[in-house]
Amino acid sequence: MLLRGRPRTLGAAALLLLLLIGFFLFGGDPDYGRPRSQGAATFDGDPPADPRGHNRSDCIPPPPPPPPPKCELLQVAIVCAGHNSSRDVITLVKSLLFYRKNPLHLHLVTDAVARNILETLFHTWMVPAVQISFYNADELKPQVSWIPNKHYSGLYGLMKLVLPSALPPDLARVIVLDTDVTFASNIAELWALFAHFSDKQAIGLVENQSDWYLGNLWRNHRPWPALGRGFNTGVILLRLDRLRQAGWEHMWKLTATRELLTLPATSLADQDIFNAVIKEHPWLVQPLPCMWNVQLSDHTLAERCYSEAPDLKVIHWNSPKKLRVKNKHVESFRNLYLTFLEYDGNLLRRELFGCPCPPPPGAEQLQQALAQLEEQDACFEFRQQQLTVHRVHITFLPHKPPPPQPHDVTLVAQLSMERLQMLEALCRHWPGPMSLALYLTDTEAQQFLRFVETSAVLSARQDVAYHVVYREGSLYPINQLRNVALAQALTPYVFLSDIDFLPAYSLYDYLRASIEQLELDGRRKAALVVPAFETLHYRFSFPSSKAELLTLLDAGSLYTFRYHEWPQGHAPTDYARWREAQAPYRVQWAADYEPYVVVPRDCPRYDPRFVGFGWNKVAHIIELDAQEYELLVLPEAFTIHLPHAPSLDITRFRSNPTYRDCVRALKDEFHQDLSRHYGAAALKYLTALQQPRGPA
Amino acid sequence: MLLRGRPRTLGAAALLLLLLIGFFLFGGDPDYGRPRSQGAATFDGDPPADPRGHNRSDCIPPPPPPPPPKCELLQVAIVCAGHNSSRDVITLVKSLLFYRKNPLHLHLVTDAVARNILETLFHTWMVPAVQISFYNADELKPQVSWIPNKHYSGLYGLMKLVLPSALPPDLARVIVLDTDVTFASNIAELWALFAHFSDKQAIGLVENQSDWYLGNLWRNHRPWPALGRGFNTGVILLRLDRLRQAGWEHMWKLTATRELLTLPATSLADQDIFNAVIKEHPWLVQPLPCMWNVQLSDHTLAERCYSEAPDLKVIHWNSPKKLRVKNKHVESFRNLYLTFLEYDGNLLRRELFGCPCPPPPGAEQLQQALAQLEEQDACFEFRQQQLTVHRVHITFLPHKPPPPQPHDVTLVAQLSMERLQMLEALCRHWPGPMSLALYLTDTEAQQFLRFVETSAVLSARQDVAYHVVYREGSLYPINQLRNVALAQALTPYVFLSDIDFLPAYSLYDYLRASIEQLELDGRRKAALVVPAFETLHYRFSFPSSKAELLTLLDAGSLYTFRYHEWPQGHAPTDYARWREAQAPYRVQWAADYEPYVVVPRDCPRYDPRFVGFGWNKVAHIIELDAQEYELLVLPEAFTIHLPHAPSLDITRFRSNPTYRDCVRALKDEFHQDLSRHYGAAALKYLTALQQPRGPA
Repeated sequence: MLLRGRPRTLGAAALLLLLLIGFFLFGGDPDYGRPRSQGAATFDGDPPADPRGHNRSDCIPPPPPPPPPKCELLQVAIVCAGHNSSRDVITLVKSLLFYRKNPLHLHLVTDAVARNILETLFHTWMVPAVQISFYNADELKPQVSWIPNKHYSGLYGLMKLVLPSALPPDLARVIVLDTDVTFASNIAELWALFAHFSDKQAIGLVENQSDWYLGNLWRNHRPWPALGRGFNTGVILLRLDRLRQAGWEHMWKLTATRELLTLPATSLADQDIFNAVIKEHPWLVQPLPCMWNVQLSDHTLAERCYSEAPDLKVIHWNSPKKLRVKNKHVESFRNLYLTFLEYDGNLLRRELFGCPCPPPPGAEQLQQALAQLEEQDACFEFRQQQLTVHRVHITFLPHKPPPPQPHDVTLVAQLSMERLQMLEALCRHWPGPMSLALYLTDTEAQQFLRFVETSAVLSARQDVAYHVVYREGSLYPINQLRNVALAQALTPYVFLSDIDFLPAYSLYDYLRASIEQLELDGRRKAALVVPAFETLHYRFSFPSSKAELLTLLDAGSLYTFRYHEWPQGHAPTDYARWREAQAPYRVQWAADYEPYVVVPRDCPRYDPRFVGFGWNKVAHIIELDAQEYELLVLPEAFTIHLPHAPSLDITRFRSNPTYRDCVRALKDEFHQDLSRHYGAAALKYLTALQQPRGPA
Repeated sequence: MLLRGRPRTLGAAALLLLLLIGFFLFGGDPDYGRPRSQGAATFDGDPPADPRGHNRSDCIPPPPPPPPPKCELLQVAIVCAGHNSSRDVITLVKSLLFYRKNPLHLHLVTDAVARNILETLFHTWMVPAVQISFYNADELKPQVSWIPNKHYSGLYGLMKLVLPSALPPDLARVIVLDTDVTFASNIAELWALFAHFSDKQAIGLVENQSDWYLGNLWRNHRPWPALGRGFNTGVILLRLDRLRQAGWEHMWKLTATRELLTLPATSLADQDIFNAVIKEHPWLVQPLPCMWNVQLSDHTLAERCYSEAPDLKVIHWNSPKKLRVKNKHVESFRNLYLTFLEYDGNLLRRELFGCPCPPPPGAEQLQQALAQLEEQDACFEFRQQQLTVHRVHITFLPHKPPPPQPHDVTLVAQLSMERLQMLEALCRHWPGPMSLALYLTDTEAQQFLRFVETSAVLSARQDVAYHVVYREGSLYPINQLRNVALAQALTPYVFLSDIDFLPAYSLYDYLRASIEQLELDGRRKAALVVPAFETLHYRFSFPSSKAELLTLLDAGSLYTFRYHEWPQGHAPTDYARWREAQAPYRVQWAADYEPYVVVPRDCPRYDPRFVGFGWNKVAHIIELDAQEYELLVLPEAFTIHLPHAPSLDITRFRSNPTYRDCVRALKDEFHQDLSRHYGAAALKYLTALQQPRGPA
């Protein structure tokens, strides 16, 4: 019997009620229960569900609904909270954008973490014909937090219930999506199904593709009431206007309250309540064809759908990560998921032809700036790279900001895939917070995710924030990356490092102590210099103290950084003085100086015009000097550069005279801007530049 | 006037003829020239073209044709020749497969180069529900080579004319595609347009989206005759059965011969002849909606199509590489192209649900083998990687095999993206042929292409064959890669090297001389050992002679390879003896020996079970020894390992005990197989293994 575990009389009464409503609605239509002829078929008059446990909408190919008008704006709502959900929602949105031909308005109900991530992402993504609105999930919590729930995420799930009041009152229709669905078709086809709604129907849903609501999965399994197998709420078509009119809020609260008299909590969050309401008011629901929500949960019955349906439209995952290679069907679905997981999101920045839409903020200026570039300019590639707006996904992995401490320091650096292996060593050397910008493709971002997940050292650290900047263009946008990492540092001080350096084990503690001792907070405007060394050997035992470092230096196992090829980069640090120094000492700026420094978080940004190899750090130090930062060398601080194969950019710099000419041109323009900004005070930088020197 | 440059009387006569035919065919239909009502609209009765220069099919949204039956096999023909065209065709096929829901039969008319590439590719790709047939383009050449042509590729273009006789006689319908088109939709929708053909129509084409055939592009511009703007042959629906019946071969040859009396050659290859035939027999053509061939050539008029059409279905490129960022429309199209260029082709190995199709060759055994793996096995990842069939694209870039020489040697190596920068140096050190396997994602393969194109050193070399093996799985399939590179070496001898080694400048010449001197060809079964050294320094001046190398060795600037951590790997080479040696000397195998050797091309393959780090070369040397190869050390040969950051696999090997256990398990299984194969003779390897030693 269907309603096992619930009072039988109540079940029987509900069934009777349902039949009566059905008769009332369909007026004893002689076609009831029989398939209709193709031409006249609509779902409007179909009964919402077959009480024997199988909603009839399953796998009957519906007539193709008329497509929505070419440029109609489609509305989509998604509830999203936390770091991992934010990654999921991006994959969903990529699949949505890939197939869509209509302008979209995304309504995102988010917590603070997801909002921070997604706001940055969409702002930098600049996809044409997509509007984004955010709604504060925390403000909605009180409306659902009274419902006993089996897990925290369920609270966010429950928020789908309050969308009719949370979304703007003039919004009449919306498609509501779980973050774990992937589109395999144009969402306009789903939107078109609103046309199948009868005058009263307000909720479009696909039948549940499991036996959960039949209540026979195990002994004493007591699911919430539902019509037959019930409906799955991973994909919902909502007529918000009708729900508001029908008193939806009152309706679901009444049902939930009543059910909670006999049931301890919801198991499947909003889905339990939607089903209970629908069981009570079946006229509300318009069943949707199964292919609009192919559910790949445990014990799924989805094969019934996908072996018969002409086409699959939306795949709904429970956890794609768990899907192993064995089930070849699941493997096929997984490929679709991976398609969008790894899809280059930059390619979705394509306009909708023939739909006049306001361009995304900043897009017009960008177009104009790009249009002004001369393709014949030898430095075209540099100019284009400088103008590129990279998609940015901040805090790609779960991250816990450190508790505020007045002298705390975040290590700031940037890297690409080939330096990933530095991360574990870096974590061992720097126990404090880090803010790292990673320059990756979408595919590499997934490899990076797996890399962190399989590393015990990295997954143990919650104070390392990884910010993915998506690759675009052929030159490494080094200063843009540094600025992303710098902007996301949350401590009052930052150590501006590079990824191929390992700091002294004691550096983190020593820096905090030095900052406190030097009373930097607000009183002195200083940049603390961390002297840099290098080893040419892979197999290298890291010095545990300054004394040990000096021994290695004397033995020729270590050198001061770039001693052989670019001594002026660090000469002003005055290594001879450092050997003997017991206290911090002040040094003067000189041409080409590029020390590694600790500065307040609000220090000047790096000049984003420097892309690829050359002058990117030098320009930043000039900026610090121009803004009158004292340069103070710390006597016990050191950091050591490890050897690596030369980067692509340095190779190009060395082999390509045009590349070098372009770096020179950028330098000149930088100096012009400097003079414009600082006037006569900037003269010394120009004078220094004009003295003959070694390589750039 | 339309037919500028052709005799006016002829033009006028043709126009008159056309009008008469039109009247005859459509019987003075009163709807002629007017749009029909939506419900009844078909293209059957429409005139093929408006002689005022604009075919009327443009941008009138056709009624959606009925989709073909769910599992109907769709036929596609493509002409493809050479290395670059083969790359193009793969991008086209990826777009085709991405959207298709039907089984496909691809008919590929290829030259020997393309056949070699595509046969390997499709064999290793193993896409379900795709059949491939090859047709020898060289055999078809005589049928079209009499037509004067402006360029060689045109000869292959012309082959589209002979498809009705070249394809199997029972093949009635086929979609013919140029290699430079990209699908943005399901090809079944295109196939469905066959249903619009009237009883006589045999060729479906989209109007040309340029003014070329109007003949007014420049003074004395004399295009071939065409109806108005003519038709573009990048996408063709062919009713082969009707063409055969109508005497197509006779028809087009007659037209071509006649036109060539006054025109010197075809400018646009087959397209000129198709248009001339259609001009003469307009009843043959069924105009297709413009969105099925959106042509982005120079001076394109395609915007007329894409600004109005509800949807774009097929994009036709002339040269996407030339499309710069400036035209924002073109940028949008370029994104579609890049989507499939960079799309992970592995993801297209998805089955068609509900279409019973014979699995691709080998797929069933592979499924079974994968199904037998134990997911709980600690070495599951290794087992899965060993079984993985990687997609292989041999000779990814144009390659000219070296002329056959009896003692020639090919350098064989494998690499992934992070070693790309070794290639230039390697080219400088090795002036002979190379066969290199590259382990890349589809996206990386494009980066690699650009890397070679922008390198003067690399693009000057035609004797370096690059074979792309597409990434799948987390362990580096080192021996599978070596086997791909080895199988593609075309000289009688191979130097089995690794990518982080640079050979002595003289090595290539010296090896060829040694092979000749030692009379290896057939008479001796020998492996010539090239002694290996290493430097720990990046900045390193490569020794130009053995004497110089010995000086560096004595100075401690060079070491024998892996002297510090794995001396047994090269100890049997006997470096002390090598110092003094004037002639090749024989050495004996000992445990863990893994020298770099020169062997005949038909040497044993590497054991593909070794994936990731560990024992992959050792096992190969055992195999050589077991097959009684003499190990002869060459007194003047040397190769030097350059430093690099440790690979991901070596890092995992060092940090992960399970990884080491798995390598040990693989070793054990290798020895079991060895005993099974060589019996008692293999005992010595097992005995050697059981002696306690250093790291694996």
